[in-house]
Amino acid sequence: MSTERLVVIGADAAGMSAASQARRRRGPDDLAIVAFDRGDYASYSACGIPYFVSGAVDDLDALIARTPAEFRDDYAIEVHLRHDVVAIDVARGAVQVMSLDGGAARWEAFDQLLVATGAVPVRPKVDGIDAEGIFGVQTLDDGVALRRTVEERRPRRVVIVGGGYIGLEMAEAFSTLGIDTHLVDAGPQVMATLDPDMAALVADGLREFGTTLHLNERVVGFDATAGWVCSVITEHATLPADLVVLGLGAEPNTALAVSAGIPIGGSGALAVNRGQHTPIERVWAAGDCAEKIHRVSGQPVAIALGTHANKQGRVAGINLGGGYATFPGVVGTAVTKVCALEVARTGLGEAEAATAGFATETVVVESTTRAGYYPGAAPITTKLIVESGSGRLLGAQIVGKEGAAKRIDALALALWNNMTVEDLLNADLSYAPPYAPVWDPILIAARKAYERVVARPPVA
Amino acid sequence: MSTERLVVIGADAAGMSAASQARRRRGPDDLAIVAFDRGDYASYSACGIPYFVSGAVDDLDALIARTPAEFRDDYAIEVHLRHDVVAIDVARGAVQVMSLDGGAARWEAFDQLLVATGAVPVRPKVDGIDAEGIFGVQTLDDGVALRRTVEERRPRRVVIVGGGYIGLEMAEAFSTLGIDTHLVDAGPQVMATLDPDMAALVADGLREFGTTLHLNERVVGFDATAGWVCSVITEHATLPADLVVLGLGAEPNTALAVSAGIPIGGSGALAVNRGQHTPIERVWAAGDCAEKIHRVSGQPVAIALGTHANKQGRVAGINLGGGYATFPGVVGTAVTKVCALEVARTGLGEAEAATAGFATETVVVESTTRAGYYPGAAPITTKLIVESGSGRLLGAQIVGKEGAAKRIDALALALWNNMTVEDLLNADLSYAPPYAPVWDPILIAARKAYERVVARPPVA
Repeated sequence: MSTERLVVIGADAAGMSAASQARRRRGPDDLAIVAFDRGDYASYSACGIPYFVSGAVDDLDALIARTPAEFRDDYAIEVHLRHDVVAIDVARGAVQVMSLDGGAARWEAFDQLLVATGAVPVRPKVDGIDAEGIFGVQTLDDGVALRRTVEERRPRRVVIVGGGYIGLEMAEAFSTLGIDTHLVDAGPQVMATLDPDMAALVADGLREFGTTLHLNERVVGFDATAGWVCSVITEHATLPADLVVLGLGAEPNTALAVSAGIPIGGSGALAVNRGQHTPIERVWAAGDCAEKIHRVSGQPVAIALGTHANKQGRVAGINLGGGYATFPGVVGTAVTKVCALEVARTGLGEAEAATAGFATETVVVESTTRAGYYPGAAPITTKLIVESGSGRLLGAQIVGKEGAAKRIDALALALWNNMTVEDLLNADLSYAPPYAPVWDPILIAARKAYERVVARPPVA
Repeated sequence: MSTERLVVIGADAAGMSAASQARRRRGPDDLAIVAFDRGDYASYSACGIPYFVSGAVDDLDALIARTPAEFRDDYAIEVHLRHDVVAIDVARGAVQVMSLDGGAARWEAFDQLLVATGAVPVRPKVDGIDAEGIFGVQTLDDGVALRRTVEERRPRRVVIVGGGYIGLEMAEAFSTLGIDTHLVDAGPQVMATLDPDMAALVADGLREFGTTLHLNERVVGFDATAGWVCSVITEHATLPADLVVLGLGAEPNTALAVSAGIPIGGSGALAVNRGQHTPIERVWAAGDCAEKIHRVSGQPVAIALGTHANKQGRVAGINLGGGYATFPGVVGTAVTKVCALEVARTGLGEAEAATAGFATETVVVESTTRAGYYPGAAPITTKLIVESGSGRLLGAQIVGKEGAAKRIDALALALWNNMTVEDLLNADLSYAPPYAPVWDPILIAARKAYERVVARPPVA
């Protein structure tokens, strides 16, 4: 039996999930596995970075699931950190690799290739963007550099450019550190993945926590002193800044693959089938760089999220290991903590639903996280986006002091199963006064949507 | 147009939900609505009673959703409290009513009758059960009497007989008040609705909170001094008690209906169709006294729970109002706070599944409520009961410091939609470090179950 060789580009969630799964099914004599990553760390929690920067998580090692030594010893997987893959030769079956610590580029042969290059933070193409002190937050290396900078330079004022998830989480992190925190966004709202009415609740939460918002302000450049950023220039103002963090979201890191002729799909991420195979023979892709199908719209989407990366990596790895698995798509579930608020969404927002061709109606319900009389009951706002006529649930958004994150999971499964609000309103969800009113906010919203969208008007 | 008359027996969740829904659809000239309840309160949260007794909820009015005056003024619904319906004459279309404040019994005519008589606490048929100081906890009157007793008699030692939901919630309430609290159960575990391994976690939580458990001890009698209970006699011991609370669960309150020839179903609760109509013309039933279909087993069940009562009442009311609605059944979801633990279950337990004829396998997963590195991450144990071969989810139980209550809702919807663990393991559930590990405990459990129950063993 000759040994096949799997090369993995990118040694984080998707890449190492795949490598581990493939190894479970095929021993080292059958399949050699080699992973390259340009960073200093493998297999870490990128989503933990804001909490590492704020100091809520103090120990860097806690963010690292497994080290290269563990992969070598426990899985017989070689992980080469600080190694940049600079070219893929599909026809020849080889990738060109350069060590960041010097030495000549070398070619490494593969029989199977997994592209798991992740995502890169969106960087606005404006003057001064290359000044020092402007940080994207994507890799753990970014996080380490950012925390070191905060400790060494003790910034008094931080400007965050962009109100995406990372932007908001970093705003919370800096406010927690007592730093004067400003957030600039070109759009009229933070968190473009929420509908404007729900995003307004998040903006209020940020302001209460001490973040100053500058909405409808496009960043047009950065000024620097001695090479280090000193201000952010917007259409309307010049905002002093000792440190800048980019929070404009991330885009699939596809440049390497595209230059090798691996095609991208309609979403801008690498095209894959449900088994995570690209259209190019022997080339697979998984994680933030790979496309997902949105089960509600039926459209391909590029969503960078650790959960999807783990699951797509698992699927790729099972198939590479000779098993069979498929990735069934996503419904757009996302949750984040923004200061004192839990913010959660799933499915399509109003505008997304319109783009996807749905006629919709919406309901918004203000309720409480616990029975109204139970100590600690706090406001929670639930919005449902529902298809007109059929009452099919298309999306949901929840903002509240607690309980939003786990409540959205029920709605995510309602979407997963194509439930209508009529199906949903009678569903047997849990109830006890410390955790919910007797009609959970989800069910109140479903009932209200049913009455508005589906039921005949009552006889007068 | 002649006015029809709807009589409702029982003015709490089911009865008043029905009355309100019927009124929304039919005005007072079309439908007169009269409700009778033997208690002092209508339309209250029975589930809030333990928190009223402990003082966590101080204001009795907070537990009351609507008063009779509000029903009269806002809904044109007559509510007569302290009125006991003592007989139903189906053929004649009348109920016999007695005021608890004296006066002769009178007959009240109905065109439609809704039986919403709720449940009654199970009382062991043993010597001394009728002593004063032995409380069931079912109605708000019970709760008021119990709190008054605690305030007036300042019991130093309470014995709770039975480890059902109310028993455990009352144990927490008394421990919170600093009272020496003992709980006796004839079975080997508390909370018979949980599998033994999960119930053991709950027992540990109770003991940590200071409750002394006496398991495998059947109560055989009560001793009293001057008519007031002074000890609980079990097979093995005599437990001194200044106060006794029954926590043996509740059974459908069907005696009145049965004596009128209204049939009970296989569960012991009143038989109803999906529209909440009994087999007797013009007679409807809803809430704790009425049967539900368990969607997983397909069997009728008697489950006393406010959520079901509200939903069944709503369905009955819509139909009484000339609309059309059906109650689609339950999946056995329940949650409670037991001291520092959230305890949640849905679907069938192991024994229930066996009784229902399923061959099962189970997985138990220990994980954390938040990302392992995130401050406050706490243990959470998730158990799935899965059909052998198919991998269909049959039930789930979760015990943890937080997040169990809302996590069970996702699993309840998985059951609702007949999902297999293979469907579930890739589901797009939310992830952010403050709320979940990147593989949520639910998904870890589903993955493990899939690997054990469904997938072929990996090639060695």
